Amino acid sequence: MVDSRKVGVLGGGQLGRMLIEAANRLNVQVNVLDAAASPAKQISAHNGHIEGSFKDAAAVKRLAQISDVVTVEIEHVDTHMLEEVASEVVVEPSWKTLRTIKDKYAQKQYFKEHGVDVAESIDLEGKGADGLKEVGTSYGYPYMLKSKTEAYDGRGNFVLRSEADIDSALQALGTRPLYAERWADFRLELAVMVVKTKDGVLTFPTVETVHEDSICKLTYAPPRNVSESTSQRAQDLAKKAIGAFEGKGVFGVEMFLLKDDSLLINEVAPRPHNSGHYTIEACPISQYDAHLRAILDLPIPQSALRLREPSIMLNILGGKTPDSHVQVAKKALESPNASIHLYGKGDARPGRKMGHITITAPTLAAAEQEIQPLIEFVDEQKGKSRGPRTNSVSEPLVAVIMGSDSDLPVLRAGLEILQKLAIPFTTRITSAHRTPDWLREFSKNASSTSLKVIIGAAGGAAHLPGMCASWTTLPVIGLPVKATHMDGWDSLVSMTQMPRGEPVATVGINNSTNAALLAVRILGAEYKDIRERLRIWMEGNEKEVMRKDKALLEDGWEAYLKSMGK
Amino acid sequence: MVDSRKVGVLGGGQLGRMLIEAANRLNVQVNVLDAAASPAKQISAHNGHIEGSFKDAAAVKRLAQISDVVTVEIEHVDTHMLEEVASEVVVEPSWKTLRTIKDKYAQKQYFKEHGVDVAESIDLEGKGADGLKEVGTSYGYPYMLKSKTEAYDGRGNFVLRSEADIDSALQALGTRPLYAERWADFRLELAVMVVKTKDGVLTFPTVETVHEDSICKLTYAPPRNVSESTSQRAQDLAKKAIGAFEGKGVFGVEMFLLKDDSLLINEVAPRPHNSGHYTIEACPISQYDAHLRAILDLPIPQSALRLREPSIMLNILGGKTPDSHVQVAKKALESPNASIHLYGKGDARPGRKMGHITITAPTLAAAEQEIQPLIEFVDEQKGKSRGPRTNSVSEPLVAVIMGSDSDLPVLRAGLEILQKLAIPFTTRITSAHRTPDWLREFSKNASSTSLKVIIGAAGGAAHLPGMCASWTTLPVIGLPVKATHMDGWDSLVSMTQMPRGEPVATVGINNSTNAALLAVRILGAEYKDIRERLRIWMEGNEKEVMRKDKALLEDGWEAYLKSMGK
Repeated sequence: MVDSRKVGVLGGGQLGRMLIEAANRLNVQVNVLDAAASPAKQISAHNGHIEGSFKDAAAVKRLAQISDVVTVEIEHVDTHMLEEVASEVVVEPSWKTLRTIKDKYAQKQYFKEHGVDVAESIDLEGKGADGLKEVGTSYGYPYMLKSKTEAYDGRGNFVLRSEADIDSALQALGTRPLYAERWADFRLELAVMVVKTKDGVLTFPTVETVHEDSICKLTYAPPRNVSESTSQRAQDLAKKAIGAFEGKGVFGVEMFLLKDDSLLINEVAPRPHNSGHYTIEACPISQYDAHLRAILDLPIPQSALRLREPSIMLNILGGKTPDSHVQVAKKALESPNASIHLYGKGDARPGRKMGHITITAPTLAAAEQEIQPLIEFVDEQKGKSRGPRTNSVSEPLVAVIMGSDSDLPVLRAGLEILQKLAIPFTTRITSAHRTPDWLREFSKNASSTSLKVIIGAAGGAAHLPGMCASWTTLPVIGLPVKATHMDGWDSLVSMTQMPRGEPVATVGINNSTNAALLAVRILGAEYKDIRERLRIWMEGNEKEVMRKDKALLEDGWEAYLKSMGK
Repeated sequence: MVDSRKVGVLGGGQLGRMLIEAANRLNVQVNVLDAAASPAKQISAHNGHIEGSFKDAAAVKRLAQISDVVTVEIEHVDTHMLEEVASEVVVEPSWKTLRTIKDKYAQKQYFKEHGVDVAESIDLEGKGADGLKEVGTSYGYPYMLKSKTEAYDGRGNFVLRSEADIDSALQALGTRPLYAERWADFRLELAVMVVKTKDGVLTFPTVETVHEDSICKLTYAPPRNVSESTSQRAQDLAKKAIGAFEGKGVFGVEMFLLKDDSLLINEVAPRPHNSGHYTIEACPISQYDAHLRAILDLPIPQSALRLREPSIMLNILGGKTPDSHVQVAKKALESPNASIHLYGKGDARPGRKMGHITITAPTLAAAEQEIQPLIEFVDEQKGKSRGPRTNSVSEPLVAVIMGSDSDLPVLRAGLEILQKLAIPFTTRITSAHRTPDWLREFSKNASSTSLKVIIGAAGGAAHLPGMCASWTTLPVIGLPVKATHMDGWDSLVSMTQMPRGEPVATVGINNSTNAALLAVRILGAEYKDIRERLRIWMEGNEKEVMRKDKALLEDGWEAYLKSMGK
């Protein structure tokens, strides 16, 4: 074992189980407090487990007695009991942190006090129907009514769309401690797993989360159509939100990305989180490794929290029949890049988290293509037909930009090759002189998208590829287009003679074939399948010339010329 | 669970443990026959395990009674007992296969009969010292003396370097059933994990294995300095070797790559194998997943057996002190891309396999750099100073080829940039006209090496980059070098005006800076760290110009000119 200390964990569900997977590999003993044969206990055979509820004070005490560090897989614990045992055993994260976070309204107040952007909220405890009406007047509709405690996976939330909803809202949640939240009109939801260690605060990459019926359905790493700078801002915000809490371990931070590109904290969890499951396959160390290492003060290199490959996580929920989730897992066995996790839970109630699937692939587009049939299958199992928003076409690897639509006919041959070799590409008109701002915006963002190569076609002074290269780090291929004067020499030289520092890969005048094939070679350096397609294509060309040579040899030059009609 | 059938496994060591890791994720119950608290049982809490030895007939019978499919984690089992239970329970792979493979001489005979290339061998059972002497005369020295059975990790092997070794060889192995093997003068050792399913035979990628004291120390995936075609031949040979065996499951195939590039089977194992540990992190499904799926007839897509990232596996062996292996694991916690596996074994005898570390990284060169300190640490723990052969320098990503050494001064600026941005590169002289065959050989092999981009510098008619592009699928950058006449125009046009089909990415005349930076951009499209280095470098340039602009504004143009000494 790398550490002889014993870890005690309150709760033995799927999060505890995946924590134990990580602990097993390091031979660290984890004592679980939960029912017998709970998911976590199934994969951990030793006599240090405790049978009982993680809400039972006596059981928590017993767990503390036989453990060196106590942690949680759920925040809905008795923090007063943890406060009591904290004098005898290390509790990570701190019971104070758990107490703040388990009350969602207290959590929001805490963020406000610490200058962390969070949706506006109003305390409604004891305010009744009048209080709800007042919120409607002040926030407008819709707004969110939420239970302060014991709320997760959408339970404890109610959306009020008009004053008419007040009665049913109170009927649903009236017995619980309530608060209201201003509606966040978000473009999409992001999440970041944060690791708090003895030395500082680290972050995993930003992911996009897709919820359905208020339950996390999918995570995308990296997020779709979100720039690297926004992802970075999300990590910074998550770091800031968690930074001031006491204690160590991983924290899940869920955020809204609003339509104006600003970010708001939605809520945080003081433990491994559904939005971090993807890290098991996608990162060198997972959120579970990180949690274990953080609470035991073992090293965590920040660069271990990188994305090895783009990945998509799909939850397997209980469906309309008791074995719906098993059918999903079976279907996933056919998916080459799918890692399947079943949690060993008992009955599959509809909506219960029974497992998850993570698909990792060389590109997010490939992962999307592979997950699509599984999403559709899950939706069928659930008895619904519509899926969430997904990109049905592959994201482009090549952008073909041109100064004017008059360049398009020259590009035709190249575009046909990209199509023939199945390279996903996009074509845009971005004139360096007529739309300099658009060209700048396009070029600056290019490396944050799926793009890997840019082909810029232009005639005359042909500033397009050169300017593009000045604003991006991606390789830019210049295609000189023959204009009215100078036979194309003007464009050729505008591109090749770029100053030292911003190269343009120039091909021959009007030779869009070579521009396209150069893009394919560049992609082929990374993607073996593309390289293979190119090799086969080149072989075809070779065979064609060999065939002609044979004909010329066999028929003689005169007959050959005749067959050419010359 | 994806399958309600129960799997019984003979042996509960590390291979059984990692098989259970995979089974746990699919909620498949695995019943282990081995001592209590054996590594496999530690991570599997149910009451279906059986305590006892996998060599005990009664225990095997009991295991068969409570299981639907029986498999092994070790081949040194009683195959007669398995033959007996095979009428009641499915045994995978077949007891016949296990019987052939557990006797290494029978294994070799089997391969010979099936036309599989294998080292020449002679039966020595009952032949004594005279037999050994005869082998020396016929094979020459050195040759290998091997025990037919119970031989693994070098135990049961003896190298005879001269006739004088015969006595000590017999002293070491004389009581065992022996055979002799002709010495294989190999360049390096390769291994392939093969999966035999109900539908056919699949292979994992080829790896290079490095042994020390006859125990596997390291595996490299992909192998170092081995062409893709050789790797493919190794997979084909492994497939052929396993194809005719009866039964399903994974098989480890160890091979010698001889100095003439031919391949010989060394030996095979009818189960998951040390040389396949890397698959846990490096492939979408691991050898353990694959074994489980194969014996249960669950789907295994061939494309799931791809390499997600290059990886290196390092075994953690028992060392000179009882906690040497723990120290290695602790050290590995600091390594960002290291996945650590400790097996939960008892005492750490020197040489005992206590765990392993797998490092995955975007390039094999990066993985080599990261593993090096761990190899050195392991060697220190072992009490030795020399390490095995490793590449101390990173493998080149860029080749800079030139028609003549007279081009080198022009290249200097570009080479300095590659150096500054830490891009591993190689420089070669390959004249299209003076060494056409060498250029052809170089170009044809380029894509099978670590290379991703080629920069070709040439003056005059400058055929070098164009010819190179005709023989490779890699992107080729052309750098026109100004020769005596025509001011460089001749070279510029030779490169840009390539025929449709074989593009050369041409940069400005003598502008090796841009040739280098274009190579960096191409690599940056794949490697984020390189893209980031480039971004910082470009930012530096931007700041430099901004600084100059500020000075020009503040000092005025006259003073500025003066400061330039003009």
